[in-house]
Amino acid sequence: MTVPGDGRRPLVSFVGAGPGDPELITVRGLRRLREADLIVHDRLVPTALLAEASADAELIDVGKAPGRHCLAQDQINRLLVERACAGRFVVRLKGGDPAIFGRLAEEVRAARAARIPVEIVPGVTAGTAGAARAGISLTERGGASLIVFATATDRAGGLASGFDWGLLARAQATLVFYMAVRRLATVTATLISLGRDPGAPALVAENVGRPHERLIAGPLARIAADARAAQAASPAIMICGPTVASALAGLERSRFAEMVR
Amino acid sequence: MTVPGDGRRPLVSFVGAGPGDPELITVRGLRRLREADLIVHDRLVPTALLAEASADAELIDVGKAPGRHCLAQDQINRLLVERACAGRFVVRLKGGDPAIFGRLAEEVRAARAARIPVEIVPGVTAGTAGAARAGISLTERGGASLIVFATATDRAGGLASGFDWGLLARAQATLVFYMAVRRLATVTATLISLGRDPGAPALVAENVGRPHERLIAGPLARIAADARAAQAASPAIMICGPTVASALAGLERSRFAEMVR
Repeated sequence: MTVPGDGRRPLVSFVGAGPGDPELITVRGLRRLREADLIVHDRLVPTALLAEASADAELIDVGKAPGRHCLAQDQINRLLVERACAGRFVVRLKGGDPAIFGRLAEEVRAARAARIPVEIVPGVTAGTAGAARAGISLTERGGASLIVFATATDRAGGLASGFDWGLLARAQATLVFYMAVRRLATVTATLISLGRDPGAPALVAENVGRPHERLIAGPLARIAADARAAQAASPAIMICGPTVASALAGLERSRFAEMVR
Repeated sequence: MTVPGDGRRPLVSFVGAGPGDPELITVRGLRRLREADLIVHDRLVPTALLAEASADAELIDVGKAPGRHCLAQDQINRLLVERACAGRFVVRLKGGDPAIFGRLAEEVRAARAARIPVEIVPGVTAGTAGAARAGISLTERGGASLIVFATATDRAGGLASGFDWGLLARAQATLVFYMAVRRLATVTATLISLGRDPGAPALVAENVGRPHERLIAGPLARIAADARAAQAASPAIMICGPTVASALAGLERSRFAEMVR
């Protein structure tokens, strides 16, 4: 394992691009982009960041548009390993934070199996960026002392099944759902049927940090209908919990939606 | 509410400094530091970041060393409001991500009550930075599809009581505990007594991104003793979950500790 900061440059650097706003990458992440011989990137990374690559760097888009598979995971793994073994400094640029729903583990494992030094440069994840845009905290002393990050949908597009929804519904926590839009009606109905307060304040943050960013706020029981009416689309997250209320208190809902557009 | 990115500069910008490594601040956060008339900062923000302030900027440390209270929360609120009302551009610099255990809500509320435009610049939180340093992901498809961020201790230094420990113990999730060191033996014993696997892989990341960073890994039942033997101290996080194992598999424990020092 290469230890970042020890002076040696790794051969593969997994860099979190942040949530979409090019200024929300870290200073180190930006430095790695400028140093890279090859940037292997996802579909949703900001184009302004790719423009930071050196003139002779190669860029490969391995991103998956919904329903369109560019490169399979094992092909991505092979690409990283082959180029790094050839001595290229490879930056693997992923949206948000690579350790949070970023399919990081598979690629790190492949690099390690080939004895390639790696580093991970963490990034700002969409959950905190969405909260920041809405002016809310995800925790509050005495109010919300747990945060749960979850995916709303599994890899086949259905409702995520790898965890206990009843537990999520009952948790005294701020819930942050990634990939939330497609199954939002099912997610919210499931949470409410298992005991979550239908009046609990919720927020959908669509395209966080991007030009078409929108924030849609309302009670949990209505947020899916509101998001559908607004034709909210992927990428989007949903945040639900008491701190959402504390930020929206005093702001009339439609006015809030208008203000943040 | 000021919408960051709309061209107007807010009067108070809450900026996440990241986990300790000065290069892990965002590009926008660094820009805000350089623009600030006044930087109101916590104890643990990197001094290299404070050196980025303009020559005529004022710096005020309101940080709390354990057991030593510099400025009470309402005094901090008042300071931000008074200076912003006087037309100064105030940056409130907080460690990690301000929305995650950063006492952000109180200060935003105070600013809003005074009709002061605010923005929040999110940051890299210690949980993902610690994972990155250990080369692990916090999620893995088919393995860990939930992440829980929790505080180990409440404001009085006791075991946190605002949430359901049984739920935490049973969750099929990666658990990330902040402020983890002081009560680590109690936290791990509680989790195990409520059903968490004592052999589950755990990691203590101390001083993430700082010169004296250390990573200590071991099974949940032993991690508190190992951390005590190593005299691990605050600030530190504890990560527990299956992806910790996947990263440590094949690395002999003591050798791991040695490599990452």
